[in-house]
Amino acid sequence: MSTYNVSISTTAQKKPKPSQDQVPFGTVFTDHMFMMDYEPEQGWHDPRIVPYAPITLDPAAMIFHYGQTVFEGLKAYRADDGRILLFRPEKNFQRLNQSSDRLSIPPVDEERVLDHLMKLLDIEKDWVPSTEGTSLYIRPFIISTEPNLAVGPSRTYTFMIILSPVGSYFAGGIHPVTIHVEEQFTRATKGGTGMAKTAGNYSSGYQAQANAKKEGNADVLWLDGVEKKYIEEVGSMNIFFKINGEIITPALTGSILKGITRMSIIELLKSWDMPVTERKISIEEVYRAFADGTIEEVFGTGTAAIISPVGELNWQGRKITINNREIGEISQRLYDTITGIQRGKLEDPFGWVVELNENIQSGSNLYSS
Amino acid sequence: MSTYNVSISTTAQKKPKPSQDQVPFGTVFTDHMFMMDYEPEQGWHDPRIVPYAPITLDPAAMIFHYGQTVFEGLKAYRADDGRILLFRPEKNFQRLNQSSDRLSIPPVDEERVLDHLMKLLDIEKDWVPSTEGTSLYIRPFIISTEPNLAVGPSRTYTFMIILSPVGSYFAGGIHPVTIHVEEQFTRATKGGTGMAKTAGNYSSGYQAQANAKKEGNADVLWLDGVEKKYIEEVGSMNIFFKINGEIITPALTGSILKGITRMSIIELLKSWDMPVTERKISIEEVYRAFADGTIEEVFGTGTAAIISPVGELNWQGRKITINNREIGEISQRLYDTITGIQRGKLEDPFGWVVELNENIQSGSNLYSS
Repeated sequence: MSTYNVSISTTAQKKPKPSQDQVPFGTVFTDHMFMMDYEPEQGWHDPRIVPYAPITLDPAAMIFHYGQTVFEGLKAYRADDGRILLFRPEKNFQRLNQSSDRLSIPPVDEERVLDHLMKLLDIEKDWVPSTEGTSLYIRPFIISTEPNLAVGPSRTYTFMIILSPVGSYFAGGIHPVTIHVEEQFTRATKGGTGMAKTAGNYSSGYQAQANAKKEGNADVLWLDGVEKKYIEEVGSMNIFFKINGEIITPALTGSILKGITRMSIIELLKSWDMPVTERKISIEEVYRAFADGTIEEVFGTGTAAIISPVGELNWQGRKITINNREIGEISQRLYDTITGIQRGKLEDPFGWVVELNENIQSGSNLYSS
Repeated sequence: MSTYNVSISTTAQKKPKPSQDQVPFGTVFTDHMFMMDYEPEQGWHDPRIVPYAPITLDPAAMIFHYGQTVFEGLKAYRADDGRILLFRPEKNFQRLNQSSDRLSIPPVDEERVLDHLMKLLDIEKDWVPSTEGTSLYIRPFIISTEPNLAVGPSRTYTFMIILSPVGSYFAGGIHPVTIHVEEQFTRATKGGTGMAKTAGNYSSGYQAQANAKKEGNADVLWLDGVEKKYIEEVGSMNIFFKINGEIITPALTGSILKGITRMSIIELLKSWDMPVTERKISIEEVYRAFADGTIEEVFGTGTAAIISPVGELNWQGRKITINNREIGEISQRLYDTITGIQRGKLEDPFGWVVELNENIQSGSNLYSS
């Protein structure tokens, strides 16, 4: 099946597979993983599929000290007929290279790593769950491995792909959440790393997220780091607003992650003759739209939740309710369409879906209960 | 010697020690390291000194994905009489806990980890080099170890201390460098992680530093992320200016690292009746001071270089020369005084120096040539 060579060493001791709906996100991993290494003389080399196992690094490996690392997140879905489908995976590897560029990490061959991923998925296909809302989460990542405390790019790297079966992100389907508009902490600023999928962008938000959760909010809405005025993204999702008939999402000005779900929603809405305006949108504009009754829907978008409707915003102690805390019409239609395309239930006029291969067996019955 | 219990397992195979002056920074490590672990039920536990060796982590360990990690850097110096001296080490562990607070990492007992460090140094004392400008670099760090891809604080952590003998930072003593004033990239913004010593702050600067070096600059001077107007720090050092008799350093407004050398220099200058003004200083002010001939000295400060005089600044294509590219009087006096105190050559009226213990043998002759 594979166009590119990859060495394969399989495990004799396969793990029991968990119940499809009871897996906490990102805590169970499959039997195998993909690895390859980089050094300047050989470039990326030694691609291999090996049993999932701990990795060994020098305590001075640069990943532990200076955060030179990038990652991606995508999913494999099981269609009702047993086929395994990926959603625009080439976009993830494109973005991985864009993130790597920002972090001074050498690029991978996008076509080749996608091929390696397909080979890994072929070996692990029994791990792709089948019930509604479940999927096999795919985490490609690159870590800097040179043992060196001098601040500067590593000479060596390891690229890995690990796989994790995940249950439904929202038990019982999507439901609107309450979001705190963050004033104290900053996620990213133009000229920083906000557009890259790199480790430091995530832990920097933990304090704000913990504070928000203490007060009953599901997550935070980040404002721009310069004026604390313009909306950037929510938690680790992009965000959309429908105000007076106009669908708006913050423009990619350099500090916002270029979401693949975001991109797909923009294309989908355009195909429905509901174009999205990508522009600056201030939190004041959103609150004015609430005051004059023109705010219709707000929703976050990302690989994990696909669509996460926002039912309430909390800014400077002022709460506003969106669409009566109900799922909006556009939110629901987008969710149904994207998840329908992803799972092969709906036609895919965009050519977004990539099938693992045409002759694999249905593995859904191999799952325990 | 130790007040606190720590298990010790020593190596039978000691490494050859490198030549004192030819060690590239941060690439050679001693025979042993310190480790302890954290989990919610036990807190920090199992403090141990073990042979320096690779560590093993699950590929899903959170350090590889979300950057939840902090570190410190300090040095042990060998005095001419063989004593081993540390410079304000308690300040490093205070700052470690401040960084941990920002990154949602549980604090360590500062007194206890300093005691553990002393025990480790006692075992590794032969690794502390003795020639001018050399030292044993100490790198305490904490990594998040829980295997979990859900974005949020780890439940488990490992704290480690590794030691690396380092040669003279500047061969032949300090010399003024050329610095590029960065306009495109941003290091940190208020509300971000700029005041914390955390991995993501360092790799985010690699692209700017590489661009600056291509054009012959030694490093970059970071401006504030909001207005790109006010000076923050240079590379990974704090910065001082002497303009028309006034010594100025950027105030700690939340995005600048609270340097221990910076703090010591402020205290030292105050003791000389040359107080430092901690305030906002714009790059325009510095260029105006050049134009009217009032700029006297510019220097960076940090643990690695202690004092790094700036001989030239490069901003928007305009180069200015500071003090004729010569080491300024204050820069030299500060360097001589701080390094003199650190190495026990000068009296320490501030109580900054902590001696390893009073009865250790001189290990300097144990070094290979």
